[in-house]
Amino acid sequence: MPSISRKGQLMPASPIRKLVPYAEAAKKRGTQVLHLNIGQPDIHTPQVALDAIKAFAPTVVEYSHSAGTESYRQGLAAYYQQHGIKVTSDQIIVTTGGSEALLFGLMACLDPGDELIIPEPFYANYNSFAIEAGANVVPVRSSIDSGFALPSIDTFRAAITPRTKGILLCNPGNPTGYLYTRAELEGLSALVKEHGLYLFSDEVYREFCYDGAHHESAMTLPGLEQHVVLIDSVSKRYSMCGARVGAFITRNAELLATVLKFAQARLSPPTFGQVASEAALHTAKSYFDEVVKEYTLRRDILVDGINSIPGAVCPRPKGAFYCVAELPIDDSDTFCQWLLESFAHKGATVMMAPATGFYSEPAPGRKQVRLAYVLEADKLRLAVECLAVALEQYPGRTRDAHPAGKMVRN
Amino acid sequence: MPSISRKGQLMPASPIRKLVPYAEAAKKRGTQVLHLNIGQPDIHTPQVALDAIKAFAPTVVEYSHSAGTESYRQGLAAYYQQHGIKVTSDQIIVTTGGSEALLFGLMACLDPGDELIIPEPFYANYNSFAIEAGANVVPVRSSIDSGFALPSIDTFRAAITPRTKGILLCNPGNPTGYLYTRAELEGLSALVKEHGLYLFSDEVYREFCYDGAHHESAMTLPGLEQHVVLIDSVSKRYSMCGARVGAFITRNAELLATVLKFAQARLSPPTFGQVASEAALHTAKSYFDEVVKEYTLRRDILVDGINSIPGAVCPRPKGAFYCVAELPIDDSDTFCQWLLESFAHKGATVMMAPATGFYSEPAPGRKQVRLAYVLEADKLRLAVECLAVALEQYPGRTRDAHPAGKMVRN
Repeated sequence: MPSISRKGQLMPASPIRKLVPYAEAAKKRGTQVLHLNIGQPDIHTPQVALDAIKAFAPTVVEYSHSAGTESYRQGLAAYYQQHGIKVTSDQIIVTTGGSEALLFGLMACLDPGDELIIPEPFYANYNSFAIEAGANVVPVRSSIDSGFALPSIDTFRAAITPRTKGILLCNPGNPTGYLYTRAELEGLSALVKEHGLYLFSDEVYREFCYDGAHHESAMTLPGLEQHVVLIDSVSKRYSMCGARVGAFITRNAELLATVLKFAQARLSPPTFGQVASEAALHTAKSYFDEVVKEYTLRRDILVDGINSIPGAVCPRPKGAFYCVAELPIDDSDTFCQWLLESFAHKGATVMMAPATGFYSEPAPGRKQVRLAYVLEADKLRLAVECLAVALEQYPGRTRDAHPAGKMVRN
Repeated sequence: MPSISRKGQLMPASPIRKLVPYAEAAKKRGTQVLHLNIGQPDIHTPQVALDAIKAFAPTVVEYSHSAGTESYRQGLAAYYQQHGIKVTSDQIIVTTGGSEALLFGLMACLDPGDELIIPEPFYANYNSFAIEAGANVVPVRSSIDSGFALPSIDTFRAAITPRTKGILLCNPGNPTGYLYTRAELEGLSALVKEHGLYLFSDEVYREFCYDGAHHESAMTLPGLEQHVVLIDSVSKRYSMCGARVGAFITRNAELLATVLKFAQARLSPPTFGQVASEAALHTAKSYFDEVVKEYTLRRDILVDGINSIPGAVCPRPKGAFYCVAELPIDDSDTFCQWLLESFAHKGATVMMAPATGFYSEPAPGRKQVRLAYVLEADKLRLAVECLAVALEQYPGRTRDAHPAGKMVRN
């Protein structure tokens, strides 16, 4: 019988998936499961995008150009210009989601055994894409005490070896929601230049910035034309995750030509998704204003709620729609499973993502969970109430509240 | 400045793309370019699929399950049952095109340096996917003299080394159109069992069989449950290449679980494409009857036409919508470029794919071209006429007709 590859063995299973059977069982018992575990927004897709799909006119659903349809790439370039990111349509390769853009980038830039530095906690699938490319992830730990701000440049410097080929940032971050400052990016920029590294910047949550904060794109860093790769996607921006349309963007001509070869091999990104994405470029600014208002409200309900629970602490992030909370618990995997298996309050329970899956090794995530606020305000309030009651009942509750206490709450 | 990976350097550029600038220049001069070079069918997508897209009702375009929507997988399983392929919905992972299915399969089964045997000429992108997985392609040469039938089992046996992990077939074949017989598959089956290999069977052209020939799926080979991987796609079947929906199918539970991890990392296959694909399962049989009738007509125009040209020879394949012809020319790359750059007849010229890109090294393809018959009959007749006239004028014309002469024509 033929064997599975080493890569196949190394690939991690989804950190959330293992809880799914417990959630299904809870639902079968009649318990309402409040999903704080997923990154699937509940916000409506812009009507202009849905209308474009309904109006799809061709009688043959053809391949598009491997780099994406010309009209969509031109529209995207205009969108970036409006956001202060100077790129032309020929510096954009449309991909099948941000996932493919990152996979292309890692395969085109890193050889097996090469190293990619990522601040942790990080999006769990970064590890999967690195494994697919044969690259090694080198984590640089960020701390809840600073709200998961960028670790010091010296920490990055200490992680650099002769095999280091790049640094990967998610800005604003999944799972932390942290929005990097201009100063943080400039610090990294100097390091990247000094060591001749790639800087992969995953900015798929660009539109989701709160409290008047401004998103700083890595593409605006001067002198990094050959270094920066922008990873983008329409999934979150337009609440259109199923369209599977992303983008790989760089001003590095050699890298663009290389990634185009990967794009040609898989023929084309999805045609329907590109039609919806091109139409979505015409989404009114008011749509985003309302989304930001709604997410700000939800964030505050969730963060204030958690911080009112004794022993629990949660920074108030300025971006994306996630936060990472530290809870007075023995083990986040056990706690999340217990919530689904053994707990209900007012007929409801909470499903969360244990943060163990967002670190390169589980230990630092043992007391942490990732929470997505893609639920309506009322449900979020109920979720917080459930969590407070659950922590009173949970057998693995610890009394050692986070030492930094409430200082990180704002 | 950071460097490109070795994989990025190794990836081949599309063998057709290099001719595109010449085709564009010809069009600018007012010359009609008859595209025999592409695999994009001109047949209408089934109306039932287009209607499903127009009727898309959800207000949020959500991720689907990573393995594809449950209802589509159940519909697909029923489709396979109807085609004599016994699979259940949980043995199917819906992918982003057949391309992704093959990439997942190679990454899950082959380690860097492992070998994959493929009869050549083969679909050029197989090489790209092997490079992405770090695997080495070991070609086994098929011959135009036998119409590109499966090379002898002894030839395969001689190619096996301790690093061989699998054999990849395209049935019916791109670029040859060859339809493998039951006896050929059974011969391979014994070898695969004997050496514990995977058998990857790309059957995306299943519906396109001519002259009453029956398609034999590798999934129907007894005793190969742990060995066979079926690669499939809706692209050609429903003339829906842009939907980007394929499938990875196996009865090997460990392999399924492994590939699901790759599928989870990229979140989900395209939602719109799955909606269209599920609806397309209801396409009437008469649609395929008409398509087969049309392609048979076109094949005969093309094959008879080429065989009437002195010194040219083209087997009459029983499947897909391609054929490989041998022409009395010095070099197929030069000839195809010359056709676009320096030739016109009745205001038209022909664009073909030099077969050099379909072999592991260019030499055996120097006199061969791949021709796709995805043009209407009248245009195909004009294309054949152009080709006959061009071969009279082409400076690199040789007089050494293929030694096997006309014996391979039927």
